[in-house]
Amino acid sequence: MDKMRIVIAGYGNVGRGVRQALARTADMELVGIVSRSPERVRKEIGDAVPVRPLADTAAWTAELRPDAAILCGGSKQDLPVQGPEIVKAVCTVDSFDNHSRLPEHFHAMDEAAKAAGHVAVISTGWDPGVFSLERTLANAFLGVRAYGFYGMTPKGGLSMGHSDALRRIEGVRDARQYTHAIPEAVERVRRGENPDFQPGDMHTRECFIVAEPGADLDRIRREAVSMPGYFAPYQTTVHFVTQEELDTACKGFPHDGLVIASGRTGDAGHAANIEYHCRWGSNPEATANILVAHARAAVRLSREGRRGAFTILDIPPAYLSPLDREELLAHWM
Amino acid sequence: MDKMRIVIAGYGNVGRGVRQALARTADMELVGIVSRSPERVRKEIGDAVPVRPLADTAAWTAELRPDAAILCGGSKQDLPVQGPEIVKAVCTVDSFDNHSRLPEHFHAMDEAAKAAGHVAVISTGWDPGVFSLERTLANAFLGVRAYGFYGMTPKGGLSMGHSDALRRIEGVRDARQYTHAIPEAVERVRRGENPDFQPGDMHTRECFIVAEPGADLDRIRREAVSMPGYFAPYQTTVHFVTQEELDTACKGFPHDGLVIASGRTGDAGHAANIEYHCRWGSNPEATANILVAHARAAVRLSREGRRGAFTILDIPPAYLSPLDREELLAHWM
Repeated sequence: MDKMRIVIAGYGNVGRGVRQALARTADMELVGIVSRSPERVRKEIGDAVPVRPLADTAAWTAELRPDAAILCGGSKQDLPVQGPEIVKAVCTVDSFDNHSRLPEHFHAMDEAAKAAGHVAVISTGWDPGVFSLERTLANAFLGVRAYGFYGMTPKGGLSMGHSDALRRIEGVRDARQYTHAIPEAVERVRRGENPDFQPGDMHTRECFIVAEPGADLDRIRREAVSMPGYFAPYQTTVHFVTQEELDTACKGFPHDGLVIASGRTGDAGHAANIEYHCRWGSNPEATANILVAHARAAVRLSREGRRGAFTILDIPPAYLSPLDREELLAHWM
Repeated sequence: MDKMRIVIAGYGNVGRGVRQALARTADMELVGIVSRSPERVRKEIGDAVPVRPLADTAAWTAELRPDAAILCGGSKQDLPVQGPEIVKAVCTVDSFDNHSRLPEHFHAMDEAAKAAGHVAVISTGWDPGVFSLERTLANAFLGVRAYGFYGMTPKGGLSMGHSDALRRIEGVRDARQYTHAIPEAVERVRRGENPDFQPGDMHTRECFIVAEPGADLDRIRREAVSMPGYFAPYQTTVHFVTQEELDTACKGFPHDGLVIASGRTGDAGHAANIEYHCRWGSNPEATANILVAHARAAVRLSREGRRGAFTILDIPPAYLSPLDREELLAHWM
C-alpha cells in the first residue's frame, strides 16, 4: 500500500509536532509544508521537505499531490479562511478550537467539502477532540453531564491563550499562565453531586510575569486579575519573575486535563463514575499526534467515497488506527 | 419519531440491568423478554411485559416486532448458539467476552447478519467494549501498548468467573473473589516503563469462602490457590467466612478498571500519558447501560441500510448518543 501523502499547512508549534509525529508514522509521509512565511520555515528546517507559499492552493496541491492537508493555523484568523479554501483542493484535518463558533465552522467546511468531493475532519485534538468524544460517551452511557477539568498536576497546565492575553498588558515583556483544577470541585463531581459550577468554581489561574524595567507592577497585577473573561471570573495569583526565572521554571508546553462524569445505574441507584485523564509533556505535540491519526481517518473515509465535514464523533474509531481489522479483533478488543 | 422497540434475550443480572436502563431511556421501549425459563421470569417481574420462550425466534419476532434484541446470555454456551440464530430475524447487540474466541464470534455473526440483512453489534460492554475503544485510541495516538488493570479501589473488583470457579471446589458452599490491581505495577506503566508483565505481576486475588460444615479448610485453600489459569499465576489470599459475613461484606457486584498507556511525543521525547478509569457500583448494570447505547447504534445503522457485524471500533460514536448532531456540535464538542 502506498503511504498516505500529507502536507502541513501552517508551521508553528503544532506544525512542528506534526512533522515529528509523521516521521514516526509508517503509513504516512510528509510531502511538503505550506506556510505564509516559507522563507522562515526553510531557514528552520532546511530543504529536506518542499516548502511552498500557502496562498496558492492550486499550485501546491498540483505539485505535491497530497492525500490530506493537516491545517495547523490558528482558530481565530487562519482556519475560518484557510479551511474552506484548502478543502476545495484536498481533504483536510484541523483543530479549530473556538467552541462557540464550532457549529459555524462545521457547516462552512461541510458545504465546501461536499461541493469539492472531499473530507474535512474538523476540531480535533485533545479538546475539542478526544475530550468531546469522552464527554459524549459518558453521557451516552450514564445519561449525565460530563465535566472538564484542566491542570490536575501540581504544576498545572500551560494556557497559551491566557499567556498571550497577559503579554498584551502594557509593561509586560513576557508571561506564562498555568491553570489549576480546584481539587474540592473535582471531588464534588466524583461524589456524584453534579454541581452547577461557575467557571471560577472549577479552576484557579496562576500568572508568571516578566515586567519591563520600571513598569508599575501594581497596575499590571490589577489589569491582569481584572481582565474580563480571561481572569476576572477566577481566583488569580500573579508572580513577577525575571526572564531567566521564567525560561527556567516555565519552559515547554505541558498540559493535562480530566473528563469526569458521575451517575447512577439501575433502580437501586448504584454509583457509576467515569474518568479520562491525559497528561502531556508537550500540548502541541500531543495535539499533533491526534491530528495525524485523524488524517489517516480522513484519507480512508475519502477513499470510500465519503464527502463533507466530520468530527471525531462521526468517525468509526478503527479508522484512526494503523492496525487492520483482524489485528484489532484478535488483540485489541 | 417512534421509540425503538427492544427485546431482552436472557434474563439474568445483565438482563435485569437492561430492563432498568430501558425504563430510563426516552427513545426506546422494552417490548418483551425472551428466556429459556419464561415461567421463572414471569414469576419475578409479573406480566407488565410479554415474556416468551427464547427458542422460537420466528414466533417472538413476529409477535413483538423488535427493532433490536439485546442478548444477555453467557459467552460460553448461550451467545455462540443464540447469536447467529437470533440475528437471522432481528438486529442484535451482545457482550460476548471470551477474548480468545472473539474473532470467531465476529465472523459467525457477520456472516449470519449479512445473509439476513441485519446488524449485529458484538462484544460490547465495558471490557470488551469501552476498554477496547480506549486501548485502541491510546495506541492510535501514542503508538504504544495499553494496559488494563482491574480493582483499583480498596475493596477491589468482584470477578464473577473466579467466584464461580471457587464454588466448584468440593466443600465450598459459597464464595466471592475480588481482584486487586498491584499499585507498583500501575506506577511502572505510569512512569512509561512499558513493562512485559506476566499476569501475576499486575493483579492479586482475594477469596472469601463459605465452607460446608466439617469441610477440610486446608484442602480447599490449597485447591483454590493452585487452580490453573484462575489462581495459580497470582498471589492469592483466602479468607474463610460465614454465610452471614459474606452476605454482609460482599454484597452487590462492584467492579472497576483502568486503561493506561504511556508514551512519548516529538523528537525530544516528551512524556504523554492517558488513563481511563471507570468505577461501577454494579458491574452488570453498567454493562447494561452500555448495551442499551449500542442498541441505539444498531438500529440506526440498520435504518441506514448497513449490514453485518460491528464492534465498538466500527461505530461512529455519535450513533451511541441520544443527542442530535446540532446539539452535539453546539454543546458536546
